[in-house]
Amino acid sequence: MEKFEAALRRVRERTPLVQCITNFVTVNDCANILLASGASPTMAHDIREAAEAVTGADALVCNMGAIEDTDAMILAGKQANRLGKPVILDPVAAGGTALRRESAGRLLSEIHFAVIRGNASEIRGLAGETAAGSGVDAGVLDVVTEENLLSSLEMVRSFSQRTGSVIAVSGAIDIISDGNNAMALRGGCATMARITGSGCMLTTLIGAFCGAMPDDLYTAACAAMAAMNVCGELAEKRRLTNGTGNATFRTDLIDAVFNLTEQQLTEGVRYEIY
Amino acid sequence: MEKFEAALRRVRERTPLVQCITNFVTVNDCANILLASGASPTMAHDIREAAEAVTGADALVCNMGAIEDTDAMILAGKQANRLGKPVILDPVAAGGTALRRESAGRLLSEIHFAVIRGNASEIRGLAGETAAGSGVDAGVLDVVTEENLLSSLEMVRSFSQRTGSVIAVSGAIDIISDGNNAMALRGGCATMARITGSGCMLTTLIGAFCGAMPDDLYTAACAAMAAMNVCGELAEKRRLTNGTGNATFRTDLIDAVFNLTEQQLTEGVRYEIY
Amino acid sequence: MEKFEAALRRVRERTPLVQCITNFVTVNDCANILLASGASPTMAHDIREAAEAVTGADALVCNMGAIEDTDAMILAGKQANRLGKPVILDPVAAGGTALRRESAGRLLSEIHFAVIRGNASEIRGLAGETAAGSGVDAGVLDVVTEENLLSSLEMVRSFSQRTGSVIAVSGAIDIISDGNNAMALRGGCATMARITGSGCMLTTLIGAFCGAMPDDLYTAACAAMAAMNVCGELAEKRRLTNGTGNATFRTDLIDAVFNLTEQQLTEGVRYEIY
Repeated sequence: MEKFEAALRRVRERTPLVQCITNFVTVNDCANILLASGASPTMAHDIREAAEAVTGADALVCNMGAIEDTDAMILAGKQANRLGKPVILDPVAAGGTALRRESAGRLLSEIHFAVIRGNASEIRGLAGETAAGSGVDAGVLDVVTEENLLSSLEMVRSFSQRTGSVIAVSGAIDIISDGNNAMALRGGCATMARITGSGCMLTTLIGAFCGAMPDDLYTAACAAMAAMNVCGELAEKRRLTNGTGNATFRTDLIDAVFNLTEQQLTEGVRYEIY
Repeated sequence: MEKFEAALRRVRERTPLVQCITNFVTVNDCANILLASGASPTMAHDIREAAEAVTGADALVCNMGAIEDTDAMILAGKQANRLGKPVILDPVAAGGTALRRESAGRLLSEIHFAVIRGNASEIRGLAGETAAGSGVDAGVLDVVTEENLLSSLEMVRSFSQRTGSVIAVSGAIDIISDGNNAMALRGGCATMARITGSGCMLTTLIGAFCGAMPDDLYTAACAAMAAMNVCGELAEKRRLTNGTGNATFRTDLIDAVFNLTEQQLTEGVRYEIY
Repeated sequence: MEKFEAALRRVRERTPLVQCITNFVTVNDCANILLASGASPTMAHDIREAAEAVTGADALVCNMGAIEDTDAMILAGKQANRLGKPVILDPVAAGGTALRRESAGRLLSEIHFAVIRGNASEIRGLAGETAAGSGVDAGVLDVVTEENLLSSLEMVRSFSQRTGSVIAVSGAIDIISDGNNAMALRGGCATMARITGSGCMLTTLIGAFCGAMPDDLYTAACAAMAAMNVCGELAEKRRLTNGTGNATFRTDLIDAVFNLTEQQLTEGVRYEIY
């Protein structure tokens, strides 16, 4: 898709600075996938400087894995809203505990998010549906399938209309909507669920694309998801060829983003518009 | 050993959710080795949710590298005890500072641990022997050798009887006892001491095995140690063949867990029953 | 250079224990590059034990990425000063926010640093020049070039005389001075700026070399910079040969330190004495 190529080009031309308030489990991967994409990372999260740091950034990513930084996210997010910079939410395990439900509620009421990207359980939970996920993975009853695709698309479209945010659900089938447009993307691979940080990295990559093209957040988020899917397939191909495992896959995935060509993106992406 | 094969199979069949309250140095490796083994990680450690998160987990790993989370470990550990879920302790540098000695004391008095896995200095220190280790490595006077093997086995057996925990000491020679049974395992390689996180990853893997078979914690812990030894040897073989270094070794080690077959485990393990 | 070979040999013979109070983004890489060099890491940073841990360490690295640990750095740094152990400062984004300017001021006034290693914007900022860097990268107006090389050397020499610290600026051209001697080093590669942690790892490596030869801190810091440059080139060569990306580059860089021979160091280093 030409729009996705253009988005990838923009990230590399503009090298956006993406501030991430994110968890200690996958923070290194998030920084390296930003650098792989052509963007720059800053992981300033201390409440005493998080909002000030937003001034120099092109986008802000709030990852609820860093649950202890919720207050810093709110200060920084409000500042980003004031300055018109896109804020992206990753509602990690948002329905998992009382603390997370409360934090998610506060974040959604205090900050306007450009994009919210989660797994099916996390997004269904935020949207008010009953969700079955435990821990950081989506529950089997929640995931988007061929069977529930249309109703799932309706869910994200409606949640997007209520929030004014682009809503993205990642999984074997990804779905995304800005309240009006909607798209399903296929691709990636099952090994992505066998490394920690696939979701965090995807959200961070959405931050890079949104930071580079804040004028078209829906295309930015779609392009980032497309890039992740294509890179997941490229890395999986290497894993199958070389007989390696999940750790090498993680490295290959980031490498694939580093080396991703516009042609690979266009030829590799599979999507349907709804 | 057939029992070890069966244990590995159980981890993959049951995909236990292992909650780790662990340090920021190696947390990513711990999550990825869990995923490599077939288990799932959750790193919930905030004191406001750590105990609640235990409800959904199959095992809890407390790693004293996260010394600032001692209170969260105690809350979560007590909850796990209440729910009958195995708690595994990694007493990182437990004798290193006054703070750590105090934290170790509190953890041992408040929580019943299914397994305690440390290096020789850490375990000797906990058991009340004089230990010489500095920092996070075992002191040379403390390590288990052919010469002190029998007295070392006696030490872990006796410490196991006092605590009711399976006690595991890892090193060039690993020893383990449940107070009655005792075993020495050989294997692994010296390069394991040239990456950060070998010990943390082993403890986490013990968490995966215990989460999958809480009915036989001794076999679970033995099998996890056996798996780590065999995978360490597989990764070292690759390092020597490819002329790579410690960073690639870390990746290969996790990959080896990902790809470990029951046959590799049985053929690779070396142990003696005492 | 024979002095650099001797320094590398000393690190491997003495296996210094390097305590790092460092940020959660790159802490794992810092620990692994220490282990690659032959040194040992301890990442004790809790304010209740940071100073006590210094007793067993050979050098202390304070990385301002861990801005929330400034008080722990001051306690530990003062203790290291008292015990005559080298303290190395990495002033990450020191001019980026009011909080960082204040923390940098406190650190410089309370601790005597053996070595301060930063990028051009960070060091110019600390030295009182106007600096243009944003986030964690050096601003284009600040970097050391062939054109401003002599005035940049004068800046570090003068800043070194005022502080009594060896001052090291890394970039496409590295410069370093102890107030009297000064050196420019060339090498490394542009991909080093495409991974997170190049700077942090370099500072940590300086900690290893200073811990191994506290009697000649200038040579120690120069040798560490030389080693990083040579290893950066070795890793880049592999990247270009294998068509890999920044994630594999990171792994190869640490591997190169692990396998670095004295001959590679001598043949690969490029420097000029000023």
